Amino acid sequence: MRRIAFEDPGDRDTYAIAERAGLEAVPVPVDEHGVDVAALVGTGARAVLVTPAHQAPTGVVLAPERRQALVAWATEVDGLVIEDEYDNEFRYDRQPVGSLEGLAPNRVASIGTVSKTLAPALRLGWIVCPSWLVEAVAHEKRIADRGSPGLDQLALATLIESGRYDRHLRHMRTVYAARRAALVEALAAHAPDIALTGLAAGFHAVAHLPDGREERAVVSAARDRSVGLYGMSRYRADAAIHPPRLVLGFGNLSVSAITRGVAAIADLLAGE
Amino acid sequence: MRRIAFEDPGDRDTYAIAERAGLEAVPVPVDEHGVDVAALVGTGARAVLVTPAHQAPTGVVLAPERRQALVAWATEVDGLVIEDEYDNEFRYDRQPVGSLEGLAPNRVASIGTVSKTLAPALRLGWIVCPSWLVEAVAHEKRIADRGSPGLDQLALATLIESGRYDRHLRHMRTVYAARRAALVEALAAHAPDIALTGLAAGFHAVAHLPDGREERAVVSAARDRSVGLYGMSRYRADAAIHPPRLVLGFGNLSVSAITRGVAAIADLLAGE
Repeated sequence: MRRIAFEDPGDRDTYAIAERAGLEAVPVPVDEHGVDVAALVGTGARAVLVTPAHQAPTGVVLAPERRQALVAWATEVDGLVIEDEYDNEFRYDRQPVGSLEGLAPNRVASIGTVSKTLAPALRLGWIVCPSWLVEAVAHEKRIADRGSPGLDQLALATLIESGRYDRHLRHMRTVYAARRAALVEALAAHAPDIALTGLAAGFHAVAHLPDGREERAVVSAARDRSVGLYGMSRYRADAAIHPPRLVLGFGNLSVSAITRGVAAIADLLAGE
Repeated sequence: MRRIAFEDPGDRDTYAIAERAGLEAVPVPVDEHGVDVAALVGTGARAVLVTPAHQAPTGVVLAPERRQALVAWATEVDGLVIEDEYDNEFRYDRQPVGSLEGLAPNRVASIGTVSKTLAPALRLGWIVCPSWLVEAVAHEKRIADRGSPGLDQLALATLIESGRYDRHLRHMRTVYAARRAALVEALAAHAPDIALTGLAAGFHAVAHLPDGREERAVVSAARDRSVGLYGMSRYRADAAIHPPRLVLGFGNLSVSAITRGVAAIADLLAGE
């Protein structure tokens, strides 16, 4: 059976999606430098789905030497890297890193979306893929849904061509950057012991709970205080013991809601 | 392997779609009374996709005894009938026949769409399915595309709730009925030897060429005269010899274009 590798932790839905496509899915660990390419080599997979610019959900960037190793692997196995650029429009501290697709256009299919820039409800995205894959991808798209909605695509094209899409991105970068800054400041003020990792990018950051804290208990207690957050465990392929982590989303919250949410989390961590 | 049956002739894309879903697809012949249920019983399939109100592309309606037999079969094999109501809004001579879903709601999943009533570009449709299937269908939809576009669904809901959708349907029925009438009249005037079959419904009718005529040659000669039409062969599962038939679409043509097109076909048939 053909095998595809996924980042672990990562979006668990991909396993069911791979199964529907007749693929065997295998997890590959992610550390602070991104996906472990040496481990990938050992899987026997010839395709991998990665989030190199801002790993979902750990928030790390793929290190330069790993990027080179990943491309070398793809060439070696005559394989494919699928690069999910789900939030690459949003880097707050510097220019985003270049795409893997730019590094090896013949070995990388790069996926973009308006789900983060405009709204997930639009269901629009794109794939920049090697020329040898274009026909097959277009065929599978036609078989899958006969194409995406036409009116929405025309509206998006107008938005892009008019320059309003870029203006919207510039504006939203400042909005989201302020929300992330509020998260960082509130944590420093209310829970200085909790380390926050992940790039200054996208819409989530990772909070490191003190060892021994039980993720699920914290998530549940936070929900009782009307604060929604996720434990890292829900993104992991196996149920083994891992250091407790929270995934904190800040994209669709106001600065004041973020501040109140962090205060509530700090309060519950102190109180137990 | 699980097996699904498709009407033959029918949409050939369904075979690739079934394969993607891990199903084995088998054709079941359609005659003037609709799908041959006795042949379906012999396939060993436990699911079938049918177009009972207006078979695509032969244009026949499923006969009452066949409807009963189909539902009995589904119950007997603990199976499922998928009823594609792709153009059921458009019957010009009488009220549409009732759905199979109404006859056996626990054994029939009925599919509707706005592709014919509004535009295929909208990519919106619905499934009325047995309660035991709802959860699985919703899960597969989420895995497949995480749902259809939200704005388009809201716009459609507004159109329906305001009554404008129904008014549009009433208006378009008269428009399409006039186009079909133009097709019937033009054929009677220009090519009275050619029988036309298929209900007064939908957007296509079937012209019976004289025996010995080669479908592909007629389609090709018509294209040279800027008249687009299809041969029935492209909808058939096998390449064996069948009586020559043309599938004539009249939905997106003006009355004058239909009349000119039929005159051109009659001309080329007479001239060869």
